[in-house]
Amino acid sequence: MSFTRRRLVPPTLFRQLFEKDSSTYTYVLADVSHPEKRALLIDPVDKTVDRDVALIRELGLKLIYAMNTHAHADHATGTGLLKSKVPGVLSVISKASNATADLFVEPGDKIYIGDIFLEVRPTPGHTCGCVTYVTGEGPEQPQPRMAFTGDALLIRGCGRTDFQGGSSSQLYQSVHSQIFTLPKETFIYPAHDYKGFSVSTVEEEMKYNPRLTKDEEAFKSIMENLNLAYPKMIDVAVPANMVCGLQDPVAKST
Amino acid sequence: MSFTRRRLVPPTLFRQLFEKDSSTYTYVLADVSHPEKRALLIDPVDKTVDRDVALIRELGLKLIYAMNTHAHADHATGTGLLKSKVPGVLSVISKASNATADLFVEPGDKIYIGDIFLEVRPTPGHTCGCVTYVTGEGPEQPQPRMAFTGDALLIRGCGRTDFQGGSSSQLYQSVHSQIFTLPKETFIYPAHDYKGFSVSTVEEEMKYNPRLTKDEEAFKSIMENLNLAYPKMIDVAVPANMVCGLQDPVAKST
Repeated sequence: MSFTRRRLVPPTLFRQLFEKDSSTYTYVLADVSHPEKRALLIDPVDKTVDRDVALIRELGLKLIYAMNTHAHADHATGTGLLKSKVPGVLSVISKASNATADLFVEPGDKIYIGDIFLEVRPTPGHTCGCVTYVTGEGPEQPQPRMAFTGDALLIRGCGRTDFQGGSSSQLYQSVHSQIFTLPKETFIYPAHDYKGFSVSTVEEEMKYNPRLTKDEEAFKSIMENLNLAYPKMIDVAVPANMVCGLQDPVAKST
Repeated sequence: MSFTRRRLVPPTLFRQLFEKDSSTYTYVLADVSHPEKRALLIDPVDKTVDRDVALIRELGLKLIYAMNTHAHADHATGTGLLKSKVPGVLSVISKASNATADLFVEPGDKIYIGDIFLEVRPTPGHTCGCVTYVTGEGPEQPQPRMAFTGDALLIRGCGRTDFQGGSSSQLYQSVHSQIFTLPKETFIYPAHDYKGFSVSTVEEEMKYNPRLTKDEEAFKSIMENLNLAYPKMIDVAVPANMVCGLQDPVAKST
């Protein structure tokens, strides 16, 4: 009897896309075994929406959700533009973000595209509304699992905790309780990378993350002494992102 | 009987790394089921060698080969530096490149790391010595297959053909005979991307590559009318890359 250990054509289509100016990763995830090839985008950027829409069209996918891991401070989200360019797309963000969107998710929620789903894990600390989206557990879900960690956990780093309701203590607890408890081979796909890394694993970050391998007090001390510059895009990006990237004309003129 | 369609921990470790200034992708491929976790690097860049060496050390890999798809004109290869930092590493390039290296490969050669191998396909046209490294065919090789196309085939593009023995006619034949004949789900991993794409497939490029979907005459006309600037790094990078990234003192002073 033949015993196939890998599928020749995986039913999960996955793409990692990069926006150079803000070093942001956008992710495409789709169930290509679904008749409609249902898809979602995680953390789209406004200036690369046309690229993303063209790719989705070429791949024959039906975009259902445009999701954010949090209200970003360093770039304008593409969710509003996507809604205007792809009719029917629903924007998604956590309820705790207090931002505007079509759908609000809460810890434990599952977001389905066809047979594939993402579960929502609360990972506040970079902002009070940060979540990590993790592919489901089970034999029909992508293996290894994938965790889209936003700015909570970066490759060998983490997001800053000095703005937008950030808390280093909360971030430490979030990563340890919600991400480091995942299977060690789980892939970590962050919202950003500044050194050219594209992916890590839970095991790697548990061993080599220079901040989060420390104890909580040491971590807090590191985060309090980063001396980072004021985020240059924050005053533009956060107000825009709180309303899904599209401010109405009245809001724009005020 | 249980029927596993995916391995929980793939025996192939694969990483895509990015160097922002030249928009170059470097690839790590390793057989982590081998007792030594044998690994190779494709198209390393000199300025990111320290990052690559640290990652290889953290992942517990044994670097065997530092390979180039061709003598690059836009960045200095990291192979020479890698040889000095990781004892025993062998640099690899095609015989047709006329460059210096420890090992010269020719069409049809197979490069093994543990049980995984790359086969060498001749894809001249961007330079006269360009090759594409393709993961092997067979149930124990990565599925889908992966083609490291260098500058022969880029995502929705291709390398220029006006320097280093380039020929648009030859490039057209190379891509059609050596890459587009691979299984349609084969992943395309190029040496560069300038728009934030990380991967494509043979099927996608056969459908949507704006140059290579044309007939040969139209392709040649496109390539002859690109009006590209003189490659700014060519006079530094090519002489260095012809000697594996490390010129000797005499060569440097001439």
